[in-house]
Amino acid sequence: MIKNKIIKFETKGFNDIVDITKEASDFASEFTEGLLNVFVQGSTLSVTTIEYEDGVIEDLKNAISRIAPEDIEYIHNLKWGDGNGFSHVRSAILGPSISIPINEGLLRLGTWQQIVVIDFDNRPRSRKAFLSIVN
Amino acid sequence: MIKNKIIKFETKGFNDIVDITKEASDFASEFTEGLLNVFVQGSTLSVTTIEYEDGVIEDLKNAISRIAPEDIEYIHNLKWGDGNGFSHVRSAILGPSISIPINEGLLRLGTWQQIVVIDFDNRPRSRKAFLSIVN
Amino acid sequence: MIKNKIIKFETKGFNDIVDITKEASDFASEFTEGLLNVFVQGSTLSVTTIEYEDGVIEDLKNAISRIAPEDIEYIHNLKWGDGNGFSHVRSAILGPSISIPINEGLLRLGTWQQIVVIDFDNRPRSRKAFLSIVN
Repeated sequence: MIKNKIIKFETKGFNDIVDITKEASDFASEFTEGLLNVFVQGSTLSVTTIEYEDGVIEDLKNAISRIAPEDIEYIHNLKWGDGNGFSHVRSAILGPSISIPINEGLLRLGTWQQIVVIDFDNRPRSRKAFLSIVN
Repeated sequence: MIKNKIIKFETKGFNDIVDITKEASDFASEFTEGLLNVFVQGSTLSVTTIEYEDGVIEDLKNAISRIAPEDIEYIHNLKWGDGNGFSHVRSAILGPSISIPINEGLLRLGTWQQIVVIDFDNRPRSRKAFLSIVN
Repeated sequence: MIKNKIIKFETKGFNDIVDITKEASDFASEFTEGLLNVFVQGSTLSVTTIEYEDGVIEDLKNAISRIAPEDIEYIHNLKWGDGNGFSHVRSAILGPSISIPINEGLLRLGTWQQIVVIDFDNRPRSRKAFLSIVN
């Protein structure tokens, strides 16, 4: 009915974008019909889909930095001194989860559409993504 | 298989950010494995996750106001005069739903990751969030 | 348990916003309780909810263009020459999926809340959206 799988990986922080498509596809390949949800645990990272190509990756980092720049004042930083106010804001805007259908045995991503985790934190982190398949 | 629960609450509008983690966790605690979806009904609010801390909350409000400022011209306002063009735009960008796994009896949020509803409207509202658990 | 349906449609690209609420509601009407997921296939489009009203639609296009303007430099364009760097960035920020509950036989959208696909690409496209209902 539902099957959960946790994948773990290391990131460098600072908008590090990690492609987890292979892990997700491998897990999905055990099913014929279903729905895969990807959830990232934490308040300074997000998950989305993108063409995993160096240029686009840089372009996305630039856009995210325009939305919540690293070098403006954050009240979170003034209060707690941990310097990652921009990370929390970016994470809340991009969100923690996406869902992708499995249909006729295939995870139905587009050809140029990969599943990526973006770590917005200001230091390297050990991270977990939860894959849940409903079928 | 699927269990829906509606929670109701009042907001002040104008980026009011309401923490609904307790209601969601209480509902999730009835299950061992599953997937919780949170959906907010309406076109001037959103749901996401964030560290529910006063500083970060203010920082997020500021970032959202940069994306869709309250004091620029909106065609919606010119046509309908209800003054909440910025609210609709913010809601469409942040989105209406998130999904979080329940694994080994726990809703798998991070330690500093809370579920929040953000009401972007320009007046107090009575709101509904739909919690759906698939298992 | 899960039922997938693919809907196909044409878009004009350049922020073309297509209302797919009717297709989704018709599919949902076959169920009493459930959860509908909408996923769009591709790396230059997104799905969200909004009041489908000409003014708001234009206001959203303007906000998205502020987040990732068409007329700035994108590394993706410098490398590949296809000119749609802005499209990829917008798609990653708004995301590929949303989930909406079906409760007591109704798809629980708000009165002014429609399901829309936004095609950010820089040319007309033939598109697919996957509707998955879990129940």
